[in-house]
Amino acid sequence: MATHNFIPTRFYNSIGSHEPVLAIGDGDTVVTETLDAHGFDREGKKRADGPNPMTGPFYVSGAEPGDALRIRIDRIAMTRPTGWTFQVLSPNVVNPGAVARFPPRAVTDWIIDIAAGRARLAKPPASLRGWSVAVEPMIGCFGLAPAMGQSISTATSGPYGGNMDYRGFGAGVEVMFPVSASGGLFFLGDVHAAQGDGEIVGTGIETAAEIQFTVEVVKRKPVGWPRGSTKSEIFTVGNARPLDQALQHATTEMLDWLIQDHGLDEVAASHVMGQAVRYRIANVFNPAYSVVCRIGREWLAGLKASPKQG
Amino acid sequence: MATHNFIPTRFYNSIGSHEPVLAIGDGDTVVTETLDAHGFDREGKKRADGPNPMTGPFYVSGAEPGDALRIRIDRIAMTRPTGWTFQVLSPNVVNPGAVARFPPRAVTDWIIDIAAGRARLAKPPASLRGWSVAVEPMIGCFGLAPAMGQSISTATSGPYGGNMDYRGFGAGVEVMFPVSASGGLFFLGDVHAAQGDGEIVGTGIETAAEIQFTVEVVKRKPVGWPRGSTKSEIFTVGNARPLDQALQHATTEMLDWLIQDHGLDEVAASHVMGQAVRYRIANVFNPAYSVVCRIGREWLAGLKASPKQG
Amino acid sequence: MATHNFIPTRFYNSIGSHEPVLAIGDGDTVVTETLDAHGFDREGKKRADGPNPMTGPFYVSGAEPGDALRIRIDRIAMTRPTGWTFQVLSPNVVNPGAVARFPPRAVTDWIIDIAAGRARLAKPPASLRGWSVAVEPMIGCFGLAPAMGQSISTATSGPYGGNMDYRGFGAGVEVMFPVSASGGLFFLGDVHAAQGDGEIVGTGIETAAEIQFTVEVVKRKPVGWPRGSTKSEIFTVGNARPLDQALQHATTEMLDWLIQDHGLDEVAASHVMGQAVRYRIANVFNPAYSVVCRIGREWLAGLKASPKQG
Amino acid sequence: MATHNFIPTRFYNSIGSHEPVLAIGDGDTVVTETLDAHGFDREGKKRADGPNPMTGPFYVSGAEPGDALRIRIDRIAMTRPTGWTFQVLSPNVVNPGAVARFPPRAVTDWIIDIAAGRARLAKPPASLRGWSVAVEPMIGCFGLAPAMGQSISTATSGPYGGNMDYRGFGAGVEVMFPVSASGGLFFLGDVHAAQGDGEIVGTGIETAAEIQFTVEVVKRKPVGWPRGSTKSEIFTVGNARPLDQALQHATTEMLDWLIQDHGLDEVAASHVMGQAVRYRIANVFNPAYSVVCRIGREWLAGLKASPKQG
Repeated sequence: MATHNFIPTRFYNSIGSHEPVLAIGDGDTVVTETLDAHGFDREGKKRADGPNPMTGPFYVSGAEPGDALRIRIDRIAMTRPTGWTFQVLSPNVVNPGAVARFPPRAVTDWIIDIAAGRARLAKPPASLRGWSVAVEPMIGCFGLAPAMGQSISTATSGPYGGNMDYRGFGAGVEVMFPVSASGGLFFLGDVHAAQGDGEIVGTGIETAAEIQFTVEVVKRKPVGWPRGSTKSEIFTVGNARPLDQALQHATTEMLDWLIQDHGLDEVAASHVMGQAVRYRIANVFNPAYSVVCRIGREWLAGLKASPKQG
Repeated sequence: MATHNFIPTRFYNSIGSHEPVLAIGDGDTVVTETLDAHGFDREGKKRADGPNPMTGPFYVSGAEPGDALRIRIDRIAMTRPTGWTFQVLSPNVVNPGAVARFPPRAVTDWIIDIAAGRARLAKPPASLRGWSVAVEPMIGCFGLAPAMGQSISTATSGPYGGNMDYRGFGAGVEVMFPVSASGGLFFLGDVHAAQGDGEIVGTGIETAAEIQFTVEVVKRKPVGWPRGSTKSEIFTVGNARPLDQALQHATTEMLDWLIQDHGLDEVAASHVMGQAVRYRIANVFNPAYSVVCRIGREWLAGLKASPKQG
Repeated sequence: MATHNFIPTRFYNSIGSHEPVLAIGDGDTVVTETLDAHGFDREGKKRADGPNPMTGPFYVSGAEPGDALRIRIDRIAMTRPTGWTFQVLSPNVVNPGAVARFPPRAVTDWIIDIAAGRARLAKPPASLRGWSVAVEPMIGCFGLAPAMGQSISTATSGPYGGNMDYRGFGAGVEVMFPVSASGGLFFLGDVHAAQGDGEIVGTGIETAAEIQFTVEVVKRKPVGWPRGSTKSEIFTVGNARPLDQALQHATTEMLDWLIQDHGLDEVAASHVMGQAVRYRIANVFNPAYSVVCRIGREWLAGLKASPKQG
Repeated sequence: MATHNFIPTRFYNSIGSHEPVLAIGDGDTVVTETLDAHGFDREGKKRADGPNPMTGPFYVSGAEPGDALRIRIDRIAMTRPTGWTFQVLSPNVVNPGAVARFPPRAVTDWIIDIAAGRARLAKPPASLRGWSVAVEPMIGCFGLAPAMGQSISTATSGPYGGNMDYRGFGAGVEVMFPVSASGGLFFLGDVHAAQGDGEIVGTGIETAAEIQFTVEVVKRKPVGWPRGSTKSEIFTVGNARPLDQALQHATTEMLDWLIQDHGLDEVAASHVMGQAVRYRIANVFNPAYSVVCRIGREWLAGLKASPKQG
C-alpha cells in the first residue's frame, strides 16, 4: 500500500502498450501531475504536443488480461491559475443550417481562482462581465492499454476508457476498466477545471493538475466498458458514434452488471432499469461520443440480492 | 380566466387540425381526464384504441400561427390504482447482439398505491419482491396541431410536441409550443405514473389521470421546438432520430432562446452553454427520440441582460 | 381498363386522407400533370405553394387496408424547357467543419433541351461552360395515404412512400405501396429532370411534367415498405434517419419479400442477400433519408422456388 | 521497378508502425500471399489469429508524412478451393424487432471453383441447391500505418484505410492512401472471393489469395481519406459510424479532390456532384462503416480544367 510521488517527463498521445514509467503494487497510491490538452504544464510551459498528452503508463503488479483494474480518484488539485476553452459551439452539436452563424473556432483564456473555486473569462464580452463558473475538476482522458496491442489516439475513446470527457469523473469516484495487457498500463491526463454536459464547445476549461489516485486489481472480472461508482450511484460508460450506439453500450453494460452482481435476470433487470436509469451525455464532440447510464444506490438497496459490487 | 371541467368522449390517435372539443379563452384553466396509452380509462374500461389516444383538441382564443402557446401543468392526479409496462428492454437500446437474450415483449401489470405515492409490480419475480417505485406522474404525449395542416400519429413527435415521453413533464412545469393553426389546438394524454430516462422498456407505468392545465397565448413569439421552464431551470426539447439530431435541435433552440431573451450573441451564448448545459435523454424508443437541453436558472441570474423569459 | 386524362386544379402539400380528385378502376391508366417542387407549372406560372405540391389523390376502386397498390410508371414527359436546383451541397452531407466554406443556398436555373435530352446551367460558371447532363426524368414524391388517418408533409417520407427522391423512380418501374385507407388515395408530383444519388444539393433538376401511370390492386398483400421492380431487378425502399435505420427498413423488407415470395427461410435468404444485395442512397437530404435495397433478377432465377412476384 | 516475391511468416492484427517485413522502392511490384480473416492459409492451415491477419508492413522508400501512396491492385488470385461466410444477416442491419427471428451466428463453408469462377455453398439448404455466385475477388482490409504512431485493430478502418470491405477493391483498381509514417508501411489481407454491398452477413466469402500490387509515391499530396480510381470512375471512401458520417467524409473528400485537381470551386463542384455522384455502401458491419462516393469519368471529361489526377 505504498504511495508514489511521480513527476512525469515523457508524455504519450496514444493509449497503448507503451513502456511503463512506473511499476506499482496492487493497492498503491500515486500522486502525479498532468499537462493540459495542448501539453502545457503548471508553469504554462509547453512540455508535449496535443492532443491530450498522457501521464503514464503505470504498470500495476498482478493485473492481467481478464481482470479489471479499479481506479479511485482521491484528489484533483488545480495547479495553474489559468485555463482555456474554445469559444463557439462545435459545428456537430447545432443544426447543420446554423453552423455558418458562428465565427471560426479560437482559443479563449480563463482565469482560475483556485482558492475561491471559481473560473472566469479573462476578457469577457460585455454581456458576460461578472459571470463566473464553479470549479469542479475532472479527468477528461484516462484508461488502460486497449486489447490486441492496439495504440489509440487520446482524441478518442473505447471499451478501455480514453477521452470520455465526462464531467462526473471527479474526486471520490471509482472506475473499473477491463485489463487487456499485463500490468493494465494506466494512463491519465486532460484535466478540466469545469465542463458542461456534452463538452459542446469542444473543451472543458483545460488546465494542468495534480492528481492522487489509488489502484486495486479485481481478479477475473469480466467488464466490457468502464464502470464507475460514487457514494450515491453506480454507472457505466459507452463510447461510440452515434449517441444511440454509445447508449446501447452503456445500457448493455449496466444490464450485465445488474445480472452479475445483483441477482437479477434480464426481465427483472429490465424492470429496474426502466424506472431507475438516468442517462448523461458526457461528450458529443470527440470521434467517439460518450453516454453514461446511471442508477442511484437507493434503487438497488431494496433488491433481494445484496449488492456485491460498486 | 374561467375554469372548465371537460369530460372527453372522443379521442384522437393523431395530433392535427381536428374539430375542437372545447373553445377556451387565453388564461383559462381546464380540468380534464386522460386515458392510458392503450385507451383504458380510470375504471379500466377500454374507451379508445392506441397508440396514445388524446384528449382534445382545445381551441384557445387568440392563438394564431406565429404565436406561441404556454401550457402550465397545474396538477396531474392518478385516477386508477393500476398501471402497466413492458417487461423487457427495447431491442433498440441494447447492443444488437444482446437482443436475442430477452423473451418476447409482453405487458406487465403494476399496482399504484396513490395515497402512498408508490407503485409496485403486481406479480414481481422473487428478486424484486418488496421493490417499489416512487410515483412521479408526467404527461407522455401533448402538443399543438403541427404546421401545414398535418395530422401526425401520437406514436411520434416533432416541433409541435407529441409523444416526447419526458419524465420532466410533471406538475409545475410550463411548456411553450409553436402555434401553427388557428386556436393552437392543444391535445394531451398518455400519463405515466413514473418512468426512467429514455423510456427504455418502451413505456412508463402507463395509467389514467386527471389533469389540470392553464393556457397563455404569447403573441408573435418565434419558437422552433418546445421550450419548458420550472422554478429552477429552463429547457428545450428536440425530437428526431438519431439522438445526435435530437440533441442538435434542442441545443440550437436553447442557443436561439439565450440570444432572443438574454442579450447574448453566438459567442457569449456558447460560453454559457459550454459550462451550463445539462442534457437529458427523454425517450429513446419512439420513432422520434427526444433530447432535453437544460440550463439552471442560477447560470442566467448573473447575466448582464435580465431574463425576459422562462 | 379505362384511360383517364386528368388536369389537376387543386394541389396538396401533405399526403393524407384528403378528398379524392378522381375515382378510377383497378387496372386503369391515368395521364396527368405535375407541378415542380415550388408549385410552378409547365408555363412557369405559380399554381400552388411548396413543398412538393401533389396531384391527386386518386381513389382506386377495390383497394382496401391490407391490400397493396401497384403503380406502373408508364411515361414521364418533361413539359417545360426550364428547371432549377440549389447550387451548394447541403450542410448535412459534408463534414460539419466544412459547412462554412459554402455561400448561402440559392436557386440556380437550368435549361432543359427536351428534344436532345440534355440539361445545362442557364448561367454556368466558367469552369462548367459546355458541361451538360443527360435527362433521366423521375418522380421525387409519390405514395398512398398513410395509416391511421395521418396527413404528412410532402417534405418527408415513410412506409406509405412520400418524398423519397430516388433517381430510380423513372418510366418502366413498378412500385407497390401498402394500402391504409379505402381507395388507397394515390398522390404524385415533384418530378426531377435528373438527379444524382443522395439528392445532395437538396434538389434534382426540379421541373413540371406529364405522367402516365397504371394502377393494379393486389389483394391481401402484406407490404411494409415500398417495393419496386424493373425488368432487371427488384428493390425495396426504407425511409428514416439516420441512413442506418433506413437501411434496416429496406433490408428487412427485402428479407420478408424473399421469404414470402421466393420460398426461402431466414438463413437461405441471408445467404442470397449477403451476396446479391446492392444498396443505393436515394436521398440524404429530406427529414427522412431513403435507402434502396436491390437484388438483380439473375440472382433469383436460380432459386428452387419460382418467383411469384416482382 | 523491381518485382519482389514475398512469402509472409508473421502477421499483424493491427495496422500500425510495426517493424517492416520488406523494404521496396517507389514503383516496385510485390507478389505476396494473404491469409483468410480467421488466419487460415492456402492449405487450410491456421497460421495466425483473427481478426484479419495482415501481410506486411511494406516500407516504401521515399514515402514520408504529407505524401500519398498509390497502390495499384494488379491481380488477386484465389489460392484455395474453399471459403466461408456467416449464415445470418448481422443483427445491426435488420429492424431491431426482427433480430430474434434468426438462429445464432455460425460459420458456413463454401466451395470455390477457381477455374469456373463460381462459388457455391458446401451444404446448401434445399431452396438453394444449384445456386452459385460469380467469383469477384477483392481485398477486404488494406492501408497504411495511421497517424500519431497509432496501431489500430484490423476489425475497423479510418482515414488510413483498414477493414473497409468494399467489393470494389478488385484487380485493376488504384487507391491512394495518406502517408503518416516514414515508408508508409503498407498492410494487406482479408481477401473475399465475392461479397454483396454492405457485407451484411458480416463476411464476404472469406478465403486465402495471392496478390500482386505496385506502389507509387505521390509527393506532397494532401489526401484526407482513401481515393480510388478505375478506368471508368474515380471514388473516395469515408469510414465512420453512423453511415451518415461515413458519407460526410467521402463526400467532403470528393469535393476537395474536384477542387484540387479539376479546377472547380465549391459551387461548381456542388453542381457536378449534385448530378454525378453515385454512392455505394461498402460495409455496414464493422466498427466503422464505409461509404463510397463515386463519379464516372464521363462527368469529368467535359470540364474546362483537364483532370490532373485520378
